[in-house]
Amino acid sequence: MRVGLLTGGGDCPGLNAAIRAVVKHGEGRYGHSIIGFRNGWKGVVDGDVLPMGRQHIRNVLPVGGTLLGTARFHPKAEDGSLDAVMATLEAERIEALICIGGDGTLHAASKVAEAGVKIVAIPKTIDNDVAGTDLSIGFHTAVNIATEAIDRVHTTAESHNRVMVVEVMGRHAGWIAVNSGIAGGAELVLAPEEPFDIDQVVKFLKHRHRAHANFSIVVVAEGAEPREGGSMDYTTQVGKYGEIIAGAIGDRLAHEIEQRTGFDTRVTILGHVQRGGSPTPTDRILGSRFGVAAMDAISEGQSGVMTALRGERVELVPLAEVAGKVKHVPLDLLRVAQTLA
Amino acid sequence: MRVGLLTGGGDCPGLNAAIRAVVKHGEGRYGHSIIGFRNGWKGVVDGDVLPMGRQHIRNVLPVGGTLLGTARFHPKAEDGSLDAVMATLEAERIEALICIGGDGTLHAASKVAEAGVKIVAIPKTIDNDVAGTDLSIGFHTAVNIATEAIDRVHTTAESHNRVMVVEVMGRHAGWIAVNSGIAGGAELVLAPEEPFDIDQVVKFLKHRHRAHANFSIVVVAEGAEPREGGSMDYTTQVGKYGEIIAGAIGDRLAHEIEQRTGFDTRVTILGHVQRGGSPTPTDRILGSRFGVAAMDAISEGQSGVMTALRGERVELVPLAEVAGKVKHVPLDLLRVAQTLA
Amino acid sequence: MRVGLLTGGGDCPGLNAAIRAVVKHGEGRYGHSIIGFRNGWKGVVDGDVLPMGRQHIRNVLPVGGTLLGTARFHPKAEDGSLDAVMATLEAERIEALICIGGDGTLHAASKVAEAGVKIVAIPKTIDNDVAGTDLSIGFHTAVNIATEAIDRVHTTAESHNRVMVVEVMGRHAGWIAVNSGIAGGAELVLAPEEPFDIDQVVKFLKHRHRAHANFSIVVVAEGAEPREGGSMDYTTQVGKYGEIIAGAIGDRLAHEIEQRTGFDTRVTILGHVQRGGSPTPTDRILGSRFGVAAMDAISEGQSGVMTALRGERVELVPLAEVAGKVKHVPLDLLRVAQTLA
Amino acid sequence: MRVGLLTGGGDCPGLNAAIRAVVKHGEGRYGHSIIGFRNGWKGVVDGDVLPMGRQHIRNVLPVGGTLLGTARFHPKAEDGSLDAVMATLEAERIEALICIGGDGTLHAASKVAEAGVKIVAIPKTIDNDVAGTDLSIGFHTAVNIATEAIDRVHTTAESHNRVMVVEVMGRHAGWIAVNSGIAGGAELVLAPEEPFDIDQVVKFLKHRHRAHANFSIVVVAEGAEPREGGSMDYTTQVGKYGEIIAGAIGDRLAHEIEQRTGFDTRVTILGHVQRGGSPTPTDRILGSRFGVAAMDAISEGQSGVMTALRGERVELVPLAEVAGKVKHVPLDLLRVAQTLA
Repeated sequence: MRVGLLTGGGDCPGLNAAIRAVVKHGEGRYGHSIIGFRNGWKGVVDGDVLPMGRQHIRNVLPVGGTLLGTARFHPKAEDGSLDAVMATLEAERIEALICIGGDGTLHAASKVAEAGVKIVAIPKTIDNDVAGTDLSIGFHTAVNIATEAIDRVHTTAESHNRVMVVEVMGRHAGWIAVNSGIAGGAELVLAPEEPFDIDQVVKFLKHRHRAHANFSIVVVAEGAEPREGGSMDYTTQVGKYGEIIAGAIGDRLAHEIEQRTGFDTRVTILGHVQRGGSPTPTDRILGSRFGVAAMDAISEGQSGVMTALRGERVELVPLAEVAGKVKHVPLDLLRVAQTLA
Repeated sequence: MRVGLLTGGGDCPGLNAAIRAVVKHGEGRYGHSIIGFRNGWKGVVDGDVLPMGRQHIRNVLPVGGTLLGTARFHPKAEDGSLDAVMATLEAERIEALICIGGDGTLHAASKVAEAGVKIVAIPKTIDNDVAGTDLSIGFHTAVNIATEAIDRVHTTAESHNRVMVVEVMGRHAGWIAVNSGIAGGAELVLAPEEPFDIDQVVKFLKHRHRAHANFSIVVVAEGAEPREGGSMDYTTQVGKYGEIIAGAIGDRLAHEIEQRTGFDTRVTILGHVQRGGSPTPTDRILGSRFGVAAMDAISEGQSGVMTALRGERVELVPLAEVAGKVKHVPLDLLRVAQTLA
Repeated sequence: MRVGLLTGGGDCPGLNAAIRAVVKHGEGRYGHSIIGFRNGWKGVVDGDVLPMGRQHIRNVLPVGGTLLGTARFHPKAEDGSLDAVMATLEAERIEALICIGGDGTLHAASKVAEAGVKIVAIPKTIDNDVAGTDLSIGFHTAVNIATEAIDRVHTTAESHNRVMVVEVMGRHAGWIAVNSGIAGGAELVLAPEEPFDIDQVVKFLKHRHRAHANFSIVVVAEGAEPREGGSMDYTTQVGKYGEIIAGAIGDRLAHEIEQRTGFDTRVTILGHVQRGGSPTPTDRILGSRFGVAAMDAISEGQSGVMTALRGERVELVPLAEVAGKVKHVPLDLLRVAQTLA
Repeated sequence: MRVGLLTGGGDCPGLNAAIRAVVKHGEGRYGHSIIGFRNGWKGVVDGDVLPMGRQHIRNVLPVGGTLLGTARFHPKAEDGSLDAVMATLEAERIEALICIGGDGTLHAASKVAEAGVKIVAIPKTIDNDVAGTDLSIGFHTAVNIATEAIDRVHTTAESHNRVMVVEVMGRHAGWIAVNSGIAGGAELVLAPEEPFDIDQVVKFLKHRHRAHANFSIVVVAEGAEPREGGSMDYTTQVGKYGEIIAGAIGDRLAHEIEQRTGFDTRVTILGHVQRGGSPTPTDRILGSRFGVAAMDAISEGQSGVMTALRGERVELVPLAEVAGKVKHVPLDLLRVAQTLA
């Protein structure tokens, strides 16, 4: 059997563990041929293939990123790229496809599956907001990196009597913010799940510093937003090349806090370091288990499903049930973060 | 309400996170008084108390071990120590008790609960073999440490064309061995769940080295055992002070492999480093969530229950259901370890 | 003997190791009383003292920051604060003073020494630009953090075929940039020691990507500057509260590279995480050795000197020889960074 | 010019950084051909060559071990292996040789140099006892690993009121023991430089535990020895395959301490993990600088010299001056370790 393999969307640690498991298990247990596509769906459109064998996956387990490369590109019916995908799969005689990716990749996968291609998906996103699975590849490493950064600014905050604002990733869900905030002992955690009231934030910090502390750490997800009506006089500026160059929520929050409390305030925006470097053991294990399970599913003839961690077990869930949904942080976990402030 | 708190059994990373959560949540949310006992059940017997407040738990989140101290001592009816426990609890007017510990501590807790004391338990054990919960405090950090050690010996094994045997903790269950073995990319993982056949081990390594490799890593749990009839000519020696000083399973295995294969073989027995140092974010979060949940349970009048992680949620399970049981590694996870060898 | 102790300027990892050594050695070997001042010179002006004993320094060795607190304040003759310093030292009967700090603190120390106070200084600065010593406290940890960040963005750069710009600290000297750049295998390192030619930077990257690579990492010190005449159309913007909120050199460089090469480019500005967290063993050892040496020097009646690492040995150098000087990265080390690109 | 390259003796982190620098600088700056020999001198004897180019050294900077492989084998005149070395060098038209290794490799190098071959050596040894250089490749990473282990057992020692003995590497010199002991805050450090008095050790621990502490950490180098006449009733046992399987100095010391003090005592023998895994930034930089300097020296026609770190600079020292000498820990550094106990 010829099995295609791709990684799509933003890269993250643990992808290579999944690739390795797919290749080792596919070759060793089933005798399949594994055909990798370079740079995600783009490589399928372009027919950019890399036949994968044992020699390609030596020593990749502890290495971050993806040896196949990736791109933020998804095929569409409208522009003919979906047809190009089908043409390549036929030309390469691909009988089934394993797609490792986040929401966009999963969405594309379900469309390609509808077009008749056998597909099994593996979820990855450092935001951890893919529905249907306890964990997605990359999230655990991101929490570790964010926690380490919070540990670091903690000593500076305490030594200088400062408020430190740490902005972490998480556009639609606050998983990294809540988990790293609890692990790092942050005083406040602001997540997209609950619009924050800037007046309350200021009041809380003033009260805390008056009562018993001389420093505070505030962790904010990039997608957190002030409640409507809460006035923040400093707005987002978008740079020439489309990036937020000023006015990221972390900057705005730090500005507002310093203005209103008078406390010396600093901001750290973690950015890309959150998605790089050697995966934690948990992400390596997750990638390995997902890779084995996806290959088993493909070999049993399954299609249109995604591997998912449910408690201690890896299960399969229909892509249709999870595509397009955002998994939010449950309120009771948010409460733990607030309780321990 | 006066709530007692103790940590029993072997220490591990994440205990302080649980202690901190119990104190912060108990004081801040409920207005309880938290009375710590030093050195586990021994402190209860001796009436060795430490009233706990905010000032005791500053900056303990990233610190390993337990600030309350611990001891491998469990009260028994036979020697009067159970009576001493009851006397102390009465003298200190303890209305409920939160016990953080492993199998022995949980067993003692259920006996004390039977004697009429309100008790909520929090599971910790680096072996991860407490039944009823996906994770116990300390396990995740131990896997990280073991994986890091496997990563380290990997480069040496490869540079010197050696077989490296790494012995990790796990007397009754192979959780650390299997998880660190997968994460570290070990060629063989031997766990208590499946007695190993030394002849098969030797055959596998010979085959591998003949076929395509010039080094191998074997991870073995301290409680792994050779299958009956499998001859290993080198036996365990117990030292003057009751420790295995020679003939730990790692040593025996390395000896046997080198004798039979002729491959240069070395052994590393990780030992105590596996239970020390700063907890991973996962163990800090687990300890924090368990601490909050235990305090909520106590405050609602619950007793005879243990906090447990089930998928993404923290739940309560009856102590009676879990005490005395060993949670083994499921066979499908063992298979992943073997598949990726 | 009553010995005063303070930490001034920005905090960094390793300060607590020096404090611990001063207290342990001063008390244990010489029987001195150690009087700490809170928040650097500010505490001396305000008479904010903390008598230090063994109980204050337990477990501080692996902890970042400074338990004495610090502030970016230096006493001046003009505003009466130098007189306030002298008054406090007299009131507290301080016979000698150990000052741990960077350039500003050392400068203040030399002025206080001129006023007749016995002073021994210990150099700290993550920038490593204090003259007269191979290493200052904090630098080594900063290089480790920066290197880890470069390792992390490396996998992302490679997976996405990107140019990644990493801005590290170093206003007047490029020690962190050059060392982390070599350790992280950066393709380009830009330091204050050599104004860079943006045209050359662009040409180099274009050539590299045409020849054999599809990604590049550029490390730039915050104090690096384009050569005069090199046109960069995007300039620095200073925020409402005096911070560079846009147009840090990293941002400007990334913008320019993307505009001129067309390569997808991202920037990471490390910021405050570089000065926080647990010190590396090297910084703990350096702090410990400097603390012991400073206490020996004070006890022998020395004054106006600074502890310095010279090869394998700790020596004393006159403050007058080092104050106000910037130690630059030698050109041969810059060449190693460029050679290995 | 055809330049040979080998790594000999035990592997360690940082070797790949040196290999990479030799290849990049040799090819890029000088246009030389670099011919690698596999498995140290053994590969030279056997003519086992690997022509090295840019493609071999991609991404090796953060990887431990040596991609060339190594062996503890040194050519001798007596058995004809030295002749075989000369024959291979001639057959491969090697004009100069860069040898990376420890004492044994350097000794062999000086003999081969005497036979007329141009040789430049690069020192590596985790023991750091090569004379003439402040640092050898691998030592810095070993100190980090040992310190991390001491940090870990610290929390266990404190939680359980124990004495923890940690045995680290160092046969002839106590560099790792002294440095990791200071960095980890050990109470006692025993090094080969000063035979220890077991009676004093016991007395010190009893006094400490009586006075103010309930735990202690003792770091001992594998080559540390009891002073003559000091009675230790438990002796070393050598295993069937020549390894110390019982009675390593760590075991003996732990036994003796427990017997005489009655304190609960545990031992951790770090072993092979000390020489593996990703090199610290310092070892990567050291390897890179040494590689560049060795290639410059070779290209300038130098021979019979070794690269050496002296303070902030890399210099060349004659092999004849350093071969066969052991660099010991200076007494003043030992004193710092003892002072801070």
